[in-house]
Amino acid sequence: MDYEILELGNVVLQNGATIRNGRLAYKTFGTLNAAKDNVIVYPTWYSGQHTDNEWLVGEGRALDPARQFIIIPKMLGNGLSSSPSNTPEPCNGPRFPKVTAYDNVRVQHRLVTEKFGIERIRLVTGWSMGGLQTFHWGAMYPSMVERIAPFCGSAKCSRHNFVFLEGVKAALTADAAFAGGWYKTKPETGLRAMARVYAGWGFSQAFYREQLDIKAMGYSSLEDFLVSFWEGLFLPRDANNLLAMLWTWQNGDISANELYGGDLKKALNAITAKAYVMPGITDLYFPPEDSEFEVANMPNASFVPIRSIWGHFAGGPGLNPEDVAFIDGKLKELLAS
Amino acid sequence: MDYEILELGNVVLQNGATIRNGRLAYKTFGTLNAAKDNVIVYPTWYSGQHTDNEWLVGEGRALDPARQFIIIPKMLGNGLSSSPSNTPEPCNGPRFPKVTAYDNVRVQHRLVTEKFGIERIRLVTGWSMGGLQTFHWGAMYPSMVERIAPFCGSAKCSRHNFVFLEGVKAALTADAAFAGGWYKTKPETGLRAMARVYAGWGFSQAFYREQLDIKAMGYSSLEDFLVSFWEGLFLPRDANNLLAMLWTWQNGDISANELYGGDLKKALNAITAKAYVMPGITDLYFPPEDSEFEVANMPNASFVPIRSIWGHFAGGPGLNPEDVAFIDGKLKELLAS
Repeated sequence: MDYEILELGNVVLQNGATIRNGRLAYKTFGTLNAAKDNVIVYPTWYSGQHTDNEWLVGEGRALDPARQFIIIPKMLGNGLSSSPSNTPEPCNGPRFPKVTAYDNVRVQHRLVTEKFGIERIRLVTGWSMGGLQTFHWGAMYPSMVERIAPFCGSAKCSRHNFVFLEGVKAALTADAAFAGGWYKTKPETGLRAMARVYAGWGFSQAFYREQLDIKAMGYSSLEDFLVSFWEGLFLPRDANNLLAMLWTWQNGDISANELYGGDLKKALNAITAKAYVMPGITDLYFPPEDSEFEVANMPNASFVPIRSIWGHFAGGPGLNPEDVAFIDGKLKELLAS
Repeated sequence: MDYEILELGNVVLQNGATIRNGRLAYKTFGTLNAAKDNVIVYPTWYSGQHTDNEWLVGEGRALDPARQFIIIPKMLGNGLSSSPSNTPEPCNGPRFPKVTAYDNVRVQHRLVTEKFGIERIRLVTGWSMGGLQTFHWGAMYPSMVERIAPFCGSAKCSRHNFVFLEGVKAALTADAAFAGGWYKTKPETGLRAMARVYAGWGFSQAFYREQLDIKAMGYSSLEDFLVSFWEGLFLPRDANNLLAMLWTWQNGDISANELYGGDLKKALNAITAKAYVMPGITDLYFPPEDSEFEVANMPNASFVPIRSIWGHFAGGPGLNPEDVAFIDGKLKELLAS
């Protein structure tokens, strides 16, 4: 096992349900220094595991284990932290409770403080749903977080983003083998349908126009890309886990809690961390206009667009070297400030 | 019955299959004048019937039955023209042959010439797949077509558009009740899933951000919009018909025929008609960049963007009065030139 587990005991969630004997999986890189001031928190994305985050970590990078102590906490529902697939009866499968990004960050905060005794975080950063969690860190623990850099993510799931995810969910659950979540064997047709729906959203029109699936990623045809990349991405995942995280995504909102009572502007305004908000300019689910709204309502934020035609995948997981170099460079700039 | 039928006899298609006793449904408005020079052809869109085209026809409009003779030919596969749902065994249902836009326009040409003896067409126009057919008219019968105005459509299905449609198809066919097309009762789960996938594509991020589903269209909530508009749009349709037209769409290409041998630039260059190519600037499946490419390769075309946040539905079917006024105004301008 190449990661650690923090035993959480009973975790009472925002919606009132409890995860019993909860566990938070995480991985660290580097060493926490004596001053405990070299901490970077880097949450995972939808369906991603820690290994899917490692492309941004390495020698000479902003996230350099030789200098930083990097913590990758894995989202609840991702199959390694408490999830539908690894929770015993009766709260398993489709009965796994609804978990918010707020719930996720609260247990991540326990990891950071209780396990490591950390009081200050230099940077929280993440891609996509990792960006959602990054915004939550900034809004929930403003006095603790010095910098945030959400890339290709948002502080609140937009209505259009919600609708796109409704389509993904409908495709997966249209498969009768899904059986309301009580499948005994993998609902393969649904997982493949979900992947095919996702394919149009993940990369931009320009990406497909320029045939980067073939010319940059090396697939032999568009159909090969749809099967080998997209279906290959979702088939190994558990359907209930995917739906649990999808619910987390659809209900992501930094203001939907007792701190801000649903007032998004108030929540954004409370993020005092120095922030680089980094949308991909061709991202179809987190369009840059949403980031502009966020930046306009944050006291210490800069709008830092990723000028790429890789759509949502400008932000990860390390597919395009130019985008990786841009993001890494901006993280270095932010860390140096 | 509020439309007419042209009996086509045996129609041999591009791919070699034959539609036997084929029929082309159509509706006309206005009167063909003695000079036969007041003809407008206005093909239907994906899943649309003639009634879904009528929003652009009326007194005082560019398409005014008092002055123009307007022919609305219905696409093969739409349920009124020869389709999977109305063709007798053995070529019914999923065995209905693959029909291209080229095949469609060839039989429409028979309607125009054989039935009405028309030699010149003032204007061909259409939304979406109607735009695809409009481009085909311009490329297949350049000496016959004086003007074209495709709106929110393209001359060739782009790779990204193809992928979006793969997702729609996967959602519909993930329903086991679809049974490879041999369903005895409507595959309702699949049709609803397809509708929900479509919902994110049809309207833009900005449309949803501004809550125009509620504020302009009058739905009571986002979920009400997804059910009452989107699921309501697809549930009455026959699944095999939808898939037949989807194939037509995915394989749409004005150059994929003996005239142009797959050379898209050559085909675009052959469209001598005066053309207004009218993309919606927030259309997620026909982005304006594709239209710019088309215009750049056409000898007599103008790029006329519809500056709307209604996404693909800027072009139809008459949902937003401002967009309708804009399109109608541009058609008047084009007809007057």
